[in-house]
Amino acid sequence: MKQTIALEDIYAPIQEQIPSVEATILNILATSNELAHATIKHFFGSKGKLLRPALCLLAAKFGKEMDEKVIRIAAALEIFHSATLIHDDIIDAAYLRRGLPTINVKWGPQTAVLVGDFLYDRALRTIFDTGIAKVTSLMYDTAEQVCDGEILELKERHNYNLTEEEYFTIVEKKTASLLSMCLEAGAIAGGLALDDVIALKKFGLYFGLAFQVVDDCLDFTGEEHEFGKTLGSDADAGVLTLPVIRLISLVNEKQKAEVFRIFKSEDSFEKLRYLKGLFSEYDALDYAREKAKEYAERAQLELSVFSDSAVKRSLEGLLTYVFDRGR
Amino acid sequence: MKQTIALEDIYAPIQEQIPSVEATILNILATSNELAHATIKHFFGSKGKLLRPALCLLAAKFGKEMDEKVIRIAAALEIFHSATLIHDDIIDAAYLRRGLPTINVKWGPQTAVLVGDFLYDRALRTIFDTGIAKVTSLMYDTAEQVCDGEILELKERHNYNLTEEEYFTIVEKKTASLLSMCLEAGAIAGGLALDDVIALKKFGLYFGLAFQVVDDCLDFTGEEHEFGKTLGSDADAGVLTLPVIRLISLVNEKQKAEVFRIFKSEDSFEKLRYLKGLFSEYDALDYAREKAKEYAERAQLELSVFSDSAVKRSLEGLLTYVFDRGR
Repeated sequence: MKQTIALEDIYAPIQEQIPSVEATILNILATSNELAHATIKHFFGSKGKLLRPALCLLAAKFGKEMDEKVIRIAAALEIFHSATLIHDDIIDAAYLRRGLPTINVKWGPQTAVLVGDFLYDRALRTIFDTGIAKVTSLMYDTAEQVCDGEILELKERHNYNLTEEEYFTIVEKKTASLLSMCLEAGAIAGGLALDDVIALKKFGLYFGLAFQVVDDCLDFTGEEHEFGKTLGSDADAGVLTLPVIRLISLVNEKQKAEVFRIFKSEDSFEKLRYLKGLFSEYDALDYAREKAKEYAERAQLELSVFSDSAVKRSLEGLLTYVFDRGR
Repeated sequence: MKQTIALEDIYAPIQEQIPSVEATILNILATSNELAHATIKHFFGSKGKLLRPALCLLAAKFGKEMDEKVIRIAAALEIFHSATLIHDDIIDAAYLRRGLPTINVKWGPQTAVLVGDFLYDRALRTIFDTGIAKVTSLMYDTAEQVCDGEILELKERHNYNLTEEEYFTIVEKKTASLLSMCLEAGAIAGGLALDDVIALKKFGLYFGLAFQVVDDCLDFTGEEHEFGKTLGSDADAGVLTLPVIRLISLVNEKQKAEVFRIFKSEDSFEKLRYLKGLFSEYDALDYAREKAKEYAERAQLELSVFSDSAVKRSLEGLLTYVFDRGR
């Protein structure tokens, strides 16, 4: 039987720091602006997985130091991530996020644009204020990568000729770059040696690629109440993810025309049912998960520079968790 | 006869630097992302007034230095301003900007969100890269102020009890803070003495308040082809500006009910015609312009610490320009 790893166990080496990160997030986002405060309270009222802070903290744990700066960087990374989610939800016209209505839906896209900007500003300034120029620079680079990836994804909507390579370029930019940065920033702030910083940065990259591919599969197969967001939302938005790209490469011309038609259809339910049927017929989801596994193995290899420790086992645990999670 | 001052004359002391700023803006925004590049080319294809870079350059001109850093800061400030305009145009669902379709209209709000984020990131990193920590800090503060002001404005839409004081708080945050920062950043980068930095910062604050009040008047009275944006767009969005606040404070209960009704009406043309009629009856636009004049006088006073020079005359010229401009 497959062993399921709980995030709680994975986060054990950093369990003392997690509450500090949560408090720091709210502290950084304190504002006298009532509307901003209400949206922040709503958004952070439903707990996320805090995956990005956790990666940052775990990386720093390999080093000697685990000071206030690491906590603040970890908090800022979660805030930055939240800013991108809030803007994403406008782009995708999503109505659910972590099981709650999106800011977009509850307060309108106008508010969501500005609250995203607000979070973005606070995140960047928090990182700048730590005085670690390398991490600040990295944050700007990463913010640009994320934005670039999202613009690419937007541009490639309904492009039925999108290749796997192009898909992975987008995924690397929009998702893996930030996850990778979380580890790199933690490693730098934790005072690790350059080789170790690089290994963790690469671990983050491969982990991020695996993570996003699985996420894209879950968009079709997850349980809405577990996944916490609307199922089939990628397909509804015309975003082609790996299972769909794989499917298009395998079906015959007649089926291809049918896939294109169904992809543009307004009927989300029919779309989801139809695509799931074809995925099963062509093992498209299995194919995607296999790709994700390959990236997870590459990530695992990067960890070989570290000797066994609780922190290392946590990162390994995350590689397993990616495939086990319902959300 | 009233003398009209051309921006060209006002910009004379910095005419050599303006083309460098324009080139630097495009340089900073260079990207291999085709969609981002297309939107940037479109947006900057129609020249703005470059008021913010000009303020930065003029302030720096009071000092000894006018180096590459000042040019880069000036360019970054225009980029930051552009980012806020692009996000504003989503919020206001505006269709015209500088006489061209907004990114919002041409490529959709999704693209506009991300392109705004992209510009915002490049602006902040450019300022960070100059290595002047004080200016970087100021940029974060200002970005927050601008965002805070816009969230407040959004929250107060259709609040018919909005006071003049609340209106000016919003204007200070959303507009004056950035104009003030342009002068302060230029002064710091130009190596001015602290007293001079403070005087220019205050000049910018008062100038900014005057500027926005006049802008709010122009939203009712400008010529659309000159103003370069849709007339009556504030009223259409439910944003109460000084002339409207003044009007509401003067009309009787029956007229007030009519103002509220018309303000919520979908008929922009009728709304504009009706409000302009009442403004004229109650001198509401004159009242607003008088307030703007008071702020311009305060701005003028701040310049008294500087002896006469071409640069000082340019700043004085800007105070006149604010009231003469058609846009």
